[in-house]
Amino acid sequence: MSKALKGSCIFGQSGGPTSVINASAYGVIRQALNSPAITRVYGAEHGILGVLNDRLFVMDEEDPRELRFLVNTPSSELGSCRYKIAEPEEDDTDYKRILEIFKKYDVRYFFYNGGNDSMDTCNKIDRYMKSVGYECRVIGVPKTIDNDLAGTDHCPGFASAAKYIATSCMETYKDMRVYDTGMVTIIEIMGRNAGWLAASASLATMAGAGPDFIYLPEVDFDMERFLDDVEDAYRENGNVMVAVSEGIHYSDGSFVSEASTSSTDAFGHEQLGGLAVILANAVKLRMDVKVRAIELSLLQRAAAHQASATDIDEAIAAGRTAVDYAVRGETGKMVGIRRDTLNFGYVGEMMSVPLEDVANKEKKVPREWINDTGNFVTKDFIDYVLPLIQGEPDIDYVNSLPRYARLKKVLATSLPEMDD
Amino acid sequence: MSKALKGSCIFGQSGGPTSVINASAYGVIRQALNSPAITRVYGAEHGILGVLNDRLFVMDEEDPRELRFLVNTPSSELGSCRYKIAEPEEDDTDYKRILEIFKKYDVRYFFYNGGNDSMDTCNKIDRYMKSVGYECRVIGVPKTIDNDLAGTDHCPGFASAAKYIATSCMETYKDMRVYDTGMVTIIEIMGRNAGWLAASASLATMAGAGPDFIYLPEVDFDMERFLDDVEDAYRENGNVMVAVSEGIHYSDGSFVSEASTSSTDAFGHEQLGGLAVILANAVKLRMDVKVRAIELSLLQRAAAHQASATDIDEAIAAGRTAVDYAVRGETGKMVGIRRDTLNFGYVGEMMSVPLEDVANKEKKVPREWINDTGNFVTKDFIDYVLPLIQGEPDIDYVNSLPRYARLKKVLATSLPEMDD
Repeated sequence: MSKALKGSCIFGQSGGPTSVINASAYGVIRQALNSPAITRVYGAEHGILGVLNDRLFVMDEEDPRELRFLVNTPSSELGSCRYKIAEPEEDDTDYKRILEIFKKYDVRYFFYNGGNDSMDTCNKIDRYMKSVGYECRVIGVPKTIDNDLAGTDHCPGFASAAKYIATSCMETYKDMRVYDTGMVTIIEIMGRNAGWLAASASLATMAGAGPDFIYLPEVDFDMERFLDDVEDAYRENGNVMVAVSEGIHYSDGSFVSEASTSSTDAFGHEQLGGLAVILANAVKLRMDVKVRAIELSLLQRAAAHQASATDIDEAIAAGRTAVDYAVRGETGKMVGIRRDTLNFGYVGEMMSVPLEDVANKEKKVPREWINDTGNFVTKDFIDYVLPLIQGEPDIDYVNSLPRYARLKKVLATSLPEMDD
Repeated sequence: MSKALKGSCIFGQSGGPTSVINASAYGVIRQALNSPAITRVYGAEHGILGVLNDRLFVMDEEDPRELRFLVNTPSSELGSCRYKIAEPEEDDTDYKRILEIFKKYDVRYFFYNGGNDSMDTCNKIDRYMKSVGYECRVIGVPKTIDNDLAGTDHCPGFASAAKYIATSCMETYKDMRVYDTGMVTIIEIMGRNAGWLAASASLATMAGAGPDFIYLPEVDFDMERFLDDVEDAYRENGNVMVAVSEGIHYSDGSFVSEASTSSTDAFGHEQLGGLAVILANAVKLRMDVKVRAIELSLLQRAAAHQASATDIDEAIAAGRTAVDYAVRGETGKMVGIRRDTLNFGYVGEMMSVPLEDVANKEKKVPREWINDTGNFVTKDFIDYVLPLIQGEPDIDYVNSLPRYARLKKVLATSLPEMDD
């Protein structure tokens, strides 16, 4: 047990939102509010930008009942960012400013909720604070629908997106088969360079209403082979459904979607999209057949109404655990999830992972979980993902529409200075 | 009370599927199986095509528990069609064949579930059977997400799609506001020439997280005015969300989506799509801003997991009532829904409507339910749609994925001939 450290905390959300990132926010905020070591709980507006800009919301001012609604409110309620922080050794401007804010508000705890890039930000802040001798405990809370985060069995946000994708594939499968004329349907799924989300469409196939083929970025894409797959299956069944990850690429590394790629984000990631239409056009050139391109778009990361209860529970637990780790003295860590399957089915256990083991790495679908021909996943993948999507969320409805959290968002700068 | 008419029945599904068309199928099949007047219950494969091709499934052979799963199974489980039947006076080939099949299976009841075109088919078959003196009672069961069917306050299928659209808009609204950079989001919604579905996005706005503007086919579209709307709102709020009906058109009648329109269906309806992208590009040409185009695509008519319980109940009731009407002697009718709002809130009551009042008509959103500037709806529309989306469906899940009906689909031609 480390010595007690008293001070306030800042919590921030970063990167693309998910259905459950606010569940983690709830976990952190609730546990921090409960903790005697933590004197005040700040929520940064737009992640690290809120720290740099002194835009901090005082969570102590919120109605506790309202905070509870965060659990089923999709997207990042405090606002997110895709801001890339410099290496502290190269440019310490941002770090000096962060230190200034930390001192201003007596911040001794920093919790940051995000994916690979956010864990990199966390790691750099932790190193900088150590280098200047400012005691502050920095803990990362994992979040990404892409599930590409290293150091954890899986990542909060992934399973809810996977469940939405599987359900949407099932519904689309039923819809596309109603006419006596055949059809090829191509569903484009997010995931950047990792195929976890597209692979989750296999859950629909397991349930009897899913794609015939799934193409992942983990296997080089071959357009002729793809068209052969589609043509053969269409000849045999009269209907073909294909799930495809936005990040598929040819063997030379160029993205299949490149024809329509127009921009990159602040981290240099290419903004992908329009892939389903490109593939649909390729199918039409090969065969005289009805083809429909469907892009699940933002909905796959925002569909809180169809979240996984397991995912929600783990997202809350990851947030709470981050606070527990920090209060007991840890820093430079991320909360990871360990899978315990022993005798009684799946259990996800929280564990502490060094940030340097996580930052800037990408975890991909193991090649052995993809079939030899590279156009579907194996049972190993199903066994991996199935426990994670279990359980229906307990949504609060008003007029049968979801009731989201309504925070007051009182700015710290608007309050009189706190006595310590 | 008409004289008792004993014989078998055929039920068919036609037109685009909905989340609840199988709930109506359940209503018809269950009530018909229960009826002493109805000797056997056939389900036609692909609607009227199944009659023409002698592809009739014997519903009496199905496990009753399995039939119950139809209630939450999206899309048309028996298969649908978009087959346009000729005027009997011009070409009676199809009618002679239908009569032949009716006689072969002693069919005295014909139930057809669909939209305007299907009610036209129903009406023609009814007229033909009367003209040749073959006693058969023909009742239409309403179905369309577009809600453009005349003779009824609203149509089963509409409310579930409306609810999905509203929820998806809410989730998208939360997602699009996470970054500190602004964004324009354009959501394309189905509905053909009627704006009911796009108008339903206003439910999200009512709930605090919906579009700023809604453009419907009921008002001529003006591209400059649209761009002014978006630009003004963007300047004011930094974020703009637009819901747009696929069927919007300029004052000369040409579709805004026409640039990407490539084909027409068997009824001569233009197949619309790609509109959101066209509008997004127009916005980008006007302003230097991030724009995202989202097409809700098939999901809006297939998302049974997010259906309205009120809609499901009415869909079942419409099916049951069709059988009741036929058994008591009616023919040439459609089951309509009358809204009773008296003192105790909304009640939907079934009523009988002559098919000729329905066939080939289109019911549109009243102009007075759209604001003067033609870019949003009034409270009258909200009052109309809100009661219809109420209640959450009681979905059967297996492994947290929907469990759909699995019918045996035993063909009548595969069974020994029935003794009467």
